[in-house]
Amino acid sequence: VTSIDIIKAPTSDPSDTAGPLQALRQAGYRASDLLAVVGKTEGNGCVNDFSRGLSAAVWEPLIPDDAITVFSGGTEGVLTPHVTLLVADRAEHHGYDRGLVAATGRTRVIAVEELGRAAQVEAVRASVESLVAELAMRTEDVHLVLVKCPLLTSTQVSSCRDRGLEPVTDDTYESMARSRLASSLGIARALDECTDAQVEAALEGRQQVWSRRASASSGAELADCHILVLGTSEAASNPLRAAHASMRDAIDADTVVQLLEQVRAEGGTVVQVLAKAEASPDGRIRGRRHTMLTDSDLQSTRHARAAVGGLLAGLVQDTAIYVSGGAEAQGAPGGGSLTVLYRLSPR
Amino acid sequence: VTSIDIIKAPTSDPSDTAGPLQALRQAGYRASDLLAVVGKTEGNGCVNDFSRGLSAAVWEPLIPDDAITVFSGGTEGVLTPHVTLLVADRAEHHGYDRGLVAATGRTRVIAVEELGRAAQVEAVRASVESLVAELAMRTEDVHLVLVKCPLLTSTQVSSCRDRGLEPVTDDTYESMARSRLASSLGIARALDECTDAQVEAALEGRQQVWSRRASASSGAELADCHILVLGTSEAASNPLRAAHASMRDAIDADTVVQLLEQVRAEGGTVVQVLAKAEASPDGRIRGRRHTMLTDSDLQSTRHARAAVGGLLAGLVQDTAIYVSGGAEAQGAPGGGSLTVLYRLSPR
Amino acid sequence: VTSIDIIKAPTSDPSDTAGPLQALRQAGYRASDLLAVVGKTEGNGCVNDFSRGLSAAVWEPLIPDDAITVFSGGTEGVLTPHVTLLVADRAEHHGYDRGLVAATGRTRVIAVEELGRAAQVEAVRASVESLVAELAMRTEDVHLVLVKCPLLTSTQVSSCRDRGLEPVTDDTYESMARSRLASSLGIARALDECTDAQVEAALEGRQQVWSRRASASSGAELADCHILVLGTSEAASNPLRAAHASMRDAIDADTVVQLLEQVRAEGGTVVQVLAKAEASPDGRIRGRRHTMLTDSDLQSTRHARAAVGGLLAGLVQDTAIYVSGGAEAQGAPGGGSLTVLYRLSPR
Amino acid sequence: VTSIDIIKAPTSDPSDTAGPLQALRQAGYRASDLLAVVGKTEGNGCVNDFSRGLSAAVWEPLIPDDAITVFSGGTEGVLTPHVTLLVADRAEHHGYDRGLVAATGRTRVIAVEELGRAAQVEAVRASVESLVAELAMRTEDVHLVLVKCPLLTSTQVSSCRDRGLEPVTDDTYESMARSRLASSLGIARALDECTDAQVEAALEGRQQVWSRRASASSGAELADCHILVLGTSEAASNPLRAAHASMRDAIDADTVVQLLEQVRAEGGTVVQVLAKAEASPDGRIRGRRHTMLTDSDLQSTRHARAAVGGLLAGLVQDTAIYVSGGAEAQGAPGGGSLTVLYRLSPR
Repeated sequence: VTSIDIIKAPTSDPSDTAGPLQALRQAGYRASDLLAVVGKTEGNGCVNDFSRGLSAAVWEPLIPDDAITVFSGGTEGVLTPHVTLLVADRAEHHGYDRGLVAATGRTRVIAVEELGRAAQVEAVRASVESLVAELAMRTEDVHLVLVKCPLLTSTQVSSCRDRGLEPVTDDTYESMARSRLASSLGIARALDECTDAQVEAALEGRQQVWSRRASASSGAELADCHILVLGTSEAASNPLRAAHASMRDAIDADTVVQLLEQVRAEGGTVVQVLAKAEASPDGRIRGRRHTMLTDSDLQSTRHARAAVGGLLAGLVQDTAIYVSGGAEAQGAPGGGSLTVLYRLSPR
Repeated sequence: VTSIDIIKAPTSDPSDTAGPLQALRQAGYRASDLLAVVGKTEGNGCVNDFSRGLSAAVWEPLIPDDAITVFSGGTEGVLTPHVTLLVADRAEHHGYDRGLVAATGRTRVIAVEELGRAAQVEAVRASVESLVAELAMRTEDVHLVLVKCPLLTSTQVSSCRDRGLEPVTDDTYESMARSRLASSLGIARALDECTDAQVEAALEGRQQVWSRRASASSGAELADCHILVLGTSEAASNPLRAAHASMRDAIDADTVVQLLEQVRAEGGTVVQVLAKAEASPDGRIRGRRHTMLTDSDLQSTRHARAAVGGLLAGLVQDTAIYVSGGAEAQGAPGGGSLTVLYRLSPR
Repeated sequence: VTSIDIIKAPTSDPSDTAGPLQALRQAGYRASDLLAVVGKTEGNGCVNDFSRGLSAAVWEPLIPDDAITVFSGGTEGVLTPHVTLLVADRAEHHGYDRGLVAATGRTRVIAVEELGRAAQVEAVRASVESLVAELAMRTEDVHLVLVKCPLLTSTQVSSCRDRGLEPVTDDTYESMARSRLASSLGIARALDECTDAQVEAALEGRQQVWSRRASASSGAELADCHILVLGTSEAASNPLRAAHASMRDAIDADTVVQLLEQVRAEGGTVVQVLAKAEASPDGRIRGRRHTMLTDSDLQSTRHARAAVGGLLAGLVQDTAIYVSGGAEAQGAPGGGSLTVLYRLSPR
Repeated sequence: VTSIDIIKAPTSDPSDTAGPLQALRQAGYRASDLLAVVGKTEGNGCVNDFSRGLSAAVWEPLIPDDAITVFSGGTEGVLTPHVTLLVADRAEHHGYDRGLVAATGRTRVIAVEELGRAAQVEAVRASVESLVAELAMRTEDVHLVLVKCPLLTSTQVSSCRDRGLEPVTDDTYESMARSRLASSLGIARALDECTDAQVEAALEGRQQVWSRRASASSGAELADCHILVLGTSEAASNPLRAAHASMRDAIDADTVVQLLEQVRAEGGTVVQVLAKAEASPDGRIRGRRHTMLTDSDLQSTRHARAAVGGLLAGLVQDTAIYVSGGAEAQGAPGGGSLTVLYRLSPR
């Protein structure tokens, strides 16, 4: 069971590893201690976001073989490009009854025709279950499962059809949503938040199923799924904690404020906030029309990140937070999963 | 002195007058009572935003000759397209020591070569002073001066150069900022918030000068400036009030919360919030990098509206608010002017 | 049978009727002579293109009740916003064996749940057949059927689902393609270019069927379909002619050059070119990758209009041409229908 | 004097080096033979185009120290992402009186406050002159000088102002134009196409000066200027040739056709076309309005690449061509420089 520490560092551009590595060293760690690099990069967060690919290209050679990268594009509005570095913390911390722990892994490569379908759900489910087992953790102690999963480019769509197979969608932007949905259902299933029948119904669009602890984002820069499981365990002792909730819509400030008050009540200081955001699929927020789904100039995930990022940055008073767009099966429709990582005061 | 009432109504699209007119009738008013139609429309809020022009085209024939329209484009993120209807309230309201009052007017046509320059400042200043005088009001009782002003299209830029004159800029998007700056400096000057020397320095970019009560937006749909002055006056008696402040940056939740608490302390209910937002010109928010000024796919005013709109909608719990992008001389750099209109409980 | 004349006029913005009306008068016609106003407006040509709605709002009150408007958004690249005015030509022209004729009409309102489905195909087919009959014309003498048809907004998608019905798609941009497809299949069926079974297969995506004479564009500014049938008839005598072809892909200059050479061989002068353009659905042009379907910042119809508009404007040496994006069932996949209207030299 | 060969290869994405390297090997060359990698990548071609940075990151480690990369973003419309590989050709080719030769180099780092100003002009001029001297070539035998130059990010703008210095512009997108202008004036000066006084006047916007052989593009991925000089020399013997011209506007098909006919008349086969394109600064093409400068959703360089790319691809019947946006001092205003590289038939 790996007790972890978290270092957050702004980046000067998607290829910036120097700044974060210096922050890592100053905190007493080395690149070989890295479990995961979780970043927000300044692309459009959509199909042709090469800021993610650039970050992956510069970071992958620097991290251990079994560490993972998760780069989520899109720092619309007030958001600051940055990385959150998760490292193995081998120091002894006394006086804590628990600690934040993490495990990372990868699924096998998801074939083009599998993307967005049961096979992807199953691959993610199996990997998440294996990581939870590795952490010797009850599923209720898991606070966040973060997944980076593939999408379909038009080359992949074509090659799939050339082989006589039908991709889940021909629309490359829509493929991102399908991939996030499948990954999130895999998480929900692994955490016992739904049944196999519900997964099937959700994949077919007949039912809304979601996990409040799932956070999935898609990208063209990988072919498998990168997975990070984060939870608190009595097998570890450190001052880091996590709390999670689900925003019920994109203006649900109350849920955010409550979570922050809970952290404050425990004497905690926020280290990082990870949130999912989306345009509510019915085109309304509290009965009023929004225009995110009729704006052909600007994808709805960009709108959602900008707006929810603005709200969260204002409430947390920090712009270097992880807000990711497209919350299929990640919290209630129109809302999104929300995780706060915080540090208790020294005892 | 015109005592006013305010009706807010969502619109189904930029050409929707039916919904708002029904709301007007239900409130006991007629189109002939209108002083101003202040709307948020769902275009890009930039040079080629024809949602503003469409709204202006359908509303102008319906309103009195001396009434004005102000359509601000851009309902990014969670914002709801809507109109705020300001009507003359001829009913007697007892028991109020003051009331919300308004006056509207227009400047002369701003010539292409005048746009963004001292001549525009002067035209706005003169009109605002005249409206304040009409309201028999001290400048300190003015809570908001809302201006809709022209911009430069490439046709106008060309015709200006063809006449041997130099426009303030050749960049059509930049012309919106120059027009907002000149209008806002005219407001600041009329409200005695700055000197002539400061206006000159601000136009040349040598000094930062701003008004916390100015809100200016630009559009291609008009050639003069439409002006609305809003204040509270002892010459009127009604339950509407206004309060204003200036957000110091785009995540300044504290200022918003304080203003809302002040309203609540007076037993008021928020009727409308009007805010200006912008990308901080130095590329940073509280020392951290934002990417609004390096995103060539999405203009910074769209980013700013989405983010600040998300924060305000969350804090006010209302998505039908007026958030406008580009806050040159309208509140501190990177922040923006903020006005809350509210209604006191019946006495 | 209505013998027609064609006047083409640039517009200074989407609300400009003054310029075109002056051109109309100079040609000896009045607004009451108008059969159709076919315009290219400078919006994004997508769901939230309000330049179309603005043009429709200013033109509709000026034209006869049975005249129609067709505004196609998107003048990317070198294209010039303009209108093509089709008027009834009551003058006698001697010495011509034929003449260009036109008829216009409207379908009933297409219900939200009908859009993109057999009901829309049938409504368009019936109207086109009726217009062809009105012109007493063989289907082979029809050179162009131009249709403007509705799309689905998120409000319509929601209201449809609220009534327990399923729209053809939840994606508002995709609804434009579905509407163009259904309209074009209705045209193909009316012109005997396909069978009912082929229509059904095409709607289900199982077969590619197309008309070389169909040109359909979608918009939120109407609820029915506006239809213009254009052909040459021996029942009329005027110097206008039409020729049509189909570009086989977006760089098929040969087909364009051949059509222009045919016009020149007849001693004709090009009056207008109407073309459809699209990103080839398999992501390739002559085996090479294009990126129009993976660009999440810019819809593929905008890419296609810009590129094909650039080619055509260069070949015709005119930027005020009608190039419309999204060529489902309008010419070969990746290509598009192409019509040239030309005027023979005086005899 | 380096006799060169040219291999053109499509790329599957900006990080694809495998495909091009295989094409290189098949042609009998190795990465160590590379003089320059000139690519079109599929980003927006603007400030936040990280596809260029990704390509540079993967190619730089593979090429010789003195070789250069030039990645131009933006494959709008029909254009295919690809690389043009220039290699030293050490084979003996008999029977040719001349051959295509090339030299590459870099300027020193251009300081932020120097960008777009005389210092950048001078740095480029000096490097180009040195490369032309290295090739022992008359300036009239130079057919193309290709430059990749830096731009200003908002971080650089801020740091410049923090040091009390004024950048040439605060607008990051505008900085790309200023950098292209300065580089191109440096080329024009080095090739004796203008005087120092004209350079000064052009930098101040008082005079139009241009080179028909300059092609400059800007990017955030470098701090110096990468320079490629291409010409024909009697000191070499190979079947490659170059011809150049300048399109007088964006629909100038005639100039393109003439250049292609000249190639055909010599029995040549086109290997590559390199063109610059821009929105004409006066907002008109042949007297008619275009909308590239008033479209706030889509930068004018993207419009221009799409349109001119569509025209050229149609005329050359090849989509893997190098079309770059922003033609300041690179050909006549509104037009752009045009170079065709071609291969003579074996003798």
